[in-house]
Amino acid sequence: MSYFKDLREYLAALEEKGKLRRVSRQINKDTELHPLARWQFRGLDESQWAGFLFENLTDVKGNSYNCRVATSIISPSREMYAFGMKATPETIHQHWREAYQHPHPPRLVPSGPVQEEIHIGQNLAEHGGINEFAIPISTNGWEPLPRWTATSWFTRDPDTGVTNIGVYNGYSLGPLRASARNWRGHFKAHWNKCRQRGVPLQAAAVVGAVPAISLVGVTSVPYGMDELHVAGGLAGEPIDVVKCQTVDMEVPATSEIVIEGEIPTDYMEPDPACGEHTGYIIINERVFAFNVTCITHRKNPIWHDIISQMPPSESSTIRGIGAEGRLTSLLKDACGIAQVKDVAFHHCAGAWRLCVVRMQDVGGVRTENPVVWHALLASLSASTDWPKMVIAVDEDIDPWDLESVFWAMSFRYQPHRDTRIIQGRYSSLDQSVGPYDIEDMKERWYPTSRVSPQGASAILMDATRKWDYTPVSLPKRHYMENARKIWEELGFPPLKPREPWHGYSLGVWPDKYQRQAELGERGEFDQVAREIMDEGGKV
Amino acid sequence: MSYFKDLREYLAALEEKGKLRRVSRQINKDTELHPLARWQFRGLDESQWAGFLFENLTDVKGNSYNCRVATSIISPSREMYAFGMKATPETIHQHWREAYQHPHPPRLVPSGPVQEEIHIGQNLAEHGGINEFAIPISTNGWEPLPRWTATSWFTRDPDTGVTNIGVYNGYSLGPLRASARNWRGHFKAHWNKCRQRGVPLQAAAVVGAVPAISLVGVTSVPYGMDELHVAGGLAGEPIDVVKCQTVDMEVPATSEIVIEGEIPTDYMEPDPACGEHTGYIIINERVFAFNVTCITHRKNPIWHDIISQMPPSESSTIRGIGAEGRLTSLLKDACGIAQVKDVAFHHCAGAWRLCVVRMQDVGGVRTENPVVWHALLASLSASTDWPKMVIAVDEDIDPWDLESVFWAMSFRYQPHRDTRIIQGRYSSLDQSVGPYDIEDMKERWYPTSRVSPQGASAILMDATRKWDYTPVSLPKRHYMENARKIWEELGFPPLKPREPWHGYSLGVWPDKYQRQAELGERGEFDQVAREIMDEGGKV
Repeated sequence: MSYFKDLREYLAALEEKGKLRRVSRQINKDTELHPLARWQFRGLDESQWAGFLFENLTDVKGNSYNCRVATSIISPSREMYAFGMKATPETIHQHWREAYQHPHPPRLVPSGPVQEEIHIGQNLAEHGGINEFAIPISTNGWEPLPRWTATSWFTRDPDTGVTNIGVYNGYSLGPLRASARNWRGHFKAHWNKCRQRGVPLQAAAVVGAVPAISLVGVTSVPYGMDELHVAGGLAGEPIDVVKCQTVDMEVPATSEIVIEGEIPTDYMEPDPACGEHTGYIIINERVFAFNVTCITHRKNPIWHDIISQMPPSESSTIRGIGAEGRLTSLLKDACGIAQVKDVAFHHCAGAWRLCVVRMQDVGGVRTENPVVWHALLASLSASTDWPKMVIAVDEDIDPWDLESVFWAMSFRYQPHRDTRIIQGRYSSLDQSVGPYDIEDMKERWYPTSRVSPQGASAILMDATRKWDYTPVSLPKRHYMENARKIWEELGFPPLKPREPWHGYSLGVWPDKYQRQAELGERGEFDQVAREIMDEGGKV
Repeated sequence: MSYFKDLREYLAALEEKGKLRRVSRQINKDTELHPLARWQFRGLDESQWAGFLFENLTDVKGNSYNCRVATSIISPSREMYAFGMKATPETIHQHWREAYQHPHPPRLVPSGPVQEEIHIGQNLAEHGGINEFAIPISTNGWEPLPRWTATSWFTRDPDTGVTNIGVYNGYSLGPLRASARNWRGHFKAHWNKCRQRGVPLQAAAVVGAVPAISLVGVTSVPYGMDELHVAGGLAGEPIDVVKCQTVDMEVPATSEIVIEGEIPTDYMEPDPACGEHTGYIIINERVFAFNVTCITHRKNPIWHDIISQMPPSESSTIRGIGAEGRLTSLLKDACGIAQVKDVAFHHCAGAWRLCVVRMQDVGGVRTENPVVWHALLASLSASTDWPKMVIAVDEDIDPWDLESVFWAMSFRYQPHRDTRIIQGRYSSLDQSVGPYDIEDMKERWYPTSRVSPQGASAILMDATRKWDYTPVSLPKRHYMENARKIWEELGFPPLKPREPWHGYSLGVWPDKYQRQAELGERGEFDQVAREIMDEGGKV
């Protein structure tokens, strides 16, 4: 394995691959930047999704910036997620497994580009503090402040010193103040430990590190594993780090920007209206505050941004692939269900709510197949609140293709026999569970009201075949392969074959029909017809 | 309204529109033709689907044909369905309503191109009978005989003389014998009436008529309406017809081919293996036999073929649009549910099994909204066996876009509260209901066995909002519109906007957040931040 040594090397590689849209004309970071990048997710096919580099930025007050913005660069699509880790879409999970098996502690170096400029002490705000950077407005017209979106928050467990890296978003609240939007996870665990000791939590907000850092930051690495080591595992070698100036933290030496500071543990900040990955804006939340103590950055820095909110987005790709890896490993390795072949999550469900589990070799039992139901029920074991809908399909169904999944649901599933609904689940950010006029926020996570007295629910659906079927009604493989050659010779539009693209047997194909098919392939139609008519009869 | 006067005028119009792929090189009708046309459905996007005209045909025995084949020409896509009736995708259902309100009886003319050549009496088989035509093999490698796919069967009610037109498929069983694959519907009713009288059913198999005939032939016109009159209504004027030579029937004068004959009512033919619209091959069925009495055709005839079997296909488009019209009319007009806005069927479900009902203005009630449930339950009233899955969505969801539908399911639906499963349904051609080793075919339509003691089932899901929600997390409309202009100026790839493409309110948007948003739009970030921090507090 190897890795991109800094964001600029990565952006150059993206551009060479035709996956970076460079924008040199002036763009308003507050009114134009996010809507422009958003259009690719609402108007292009996934194969066309790419990154953006904005080189000439202004804002709604007319300021201009000596700071570029890169957005949608890490993983708008599965293809680009793989590219960032120097893998292919098929080998992503293998790369992850190797990263966990062979973590590399970082290598401390005395200096690095990220400290080319240092603003500290009395000079902390000399260039405007946080406002030096062209931080865009997201979800324009609803959100009232510039939003940090691709920030990797570095914190340490105060007991063990183990580093957590988490990508959380937040808002600029002034030159030296921001918020960190997180409610659960390891960051929160560190915060709780500091709160018990009565001290603030030290943190470094890293912006524009090597892709390996971002990929680790959005993934649920087991608590206790140092995520800088895992990032090294993903890179295949130690990540170079430098010491922070004002907090006890080491950060990637080639990062674009590092903002050091402290998070009070006796105070929380109200959250402004904030577009979420569910496709809705959330309100009435409280989040962590962040007081800046030092800012370091490269010359001509690049602010790293991500497109989140309404799916599909860069966020739904990253989280979906992470959830697939997590649940595949849980079902196959932890639960020992060898018959699980793939787990697929989907953009449209904000990644987490819809899960398709592809099974192989589950024959032998008809309805209520315990192996299938083991997988369906165990799929709820990764979290209290996701997935919400789980569909089991056979190996010949493409779990990432909703059309393929619904073909399975149409003809391999009987609702009354193949459905189970499970109550008593949490409902994170899901407004279907109760109206927003429920005052008690706890009620929103686990309703006990008349509307939904037993919490939220999940639905499990078994769309695998319960017995042998007749063949798939497409021409046999060699006919389709031959026709594809003719198609290409004729210069017709390029094909992107969709599974299944040829017929195959599913167990029921009596000899009589095979014999007739073979006669037909030789053009012996008269003999076939005679055989059929001989079998006919009075009614 | 106007109409295409014959198939050749229509094909020329298709070609001018860039929607006909003309293939002049030699193609084997038995091994190459269907696989080639099939590829567009397994390898291109719907916007690229078009018709094919094969001009130089051979077969597996080395014969060549003075007969062309046109396939996938009537309605591979919604766009082409509309084009064939000189409508737009948005006005299809309005054209249908006008056709029913203003039917035109046909105009009998003394002669027509379809009788340019007549094979009758002792000369009936002079050119090989049916085998004169280049009838392709479908589902290659599984089906043993050339298959008639786009044939419009004309029959008359022996009591009233009213004409039924039904597009059914069948197989060539020799120069003067074929089968007609039909189990239910008006054709079967005519057959039953003749059977009671002890006479065969006269029929004319019409191939390559004007598009209006094909569109009527695949649609469930109410029994008793003469479908030639309805076709005239769709055309906007009477269809010219000529008298058949050997049966008491009138057929469109500009058809490519008409095969006249009789269907025995005391005999049924075994059906060979046959690819079906479910995506599977069916076996063990019996169908009608057809004895040819006369063949008439244009010079240089065109055999009209359709791509069916595995969805998506031309067949799933035609049937889906027909089912949408049928169910929209049933729900809105017959059941009086004014809040039904659209009904959408989907290719992947073989058109009929998955139905999305788009509702508007159903506010005022929270869960268990009786209007929504009226529509969901009534959607099962069109048939004993379809749809199988019905999902109700709000007006802001695109019911034809599965991603949009699953976004609704993810955040507007609670399985335990918003699901009903209905048993006691039929299961036409759906193997999920029981294994093929159930000998009794009745058991396959309505199982009573241990596996499924109460028949098949349907699942109804209410994915409408039950109360007000916070806004959709996309930039407001004017930001997106402005960014689209910039997108186009920058020369980025053409956009196909997907709903929703901008944020909008869904009822919950307190004044405080609106005020902060307005401040943010003016760049008054310090004031917003001050307001937020003033509300913060100890934890």
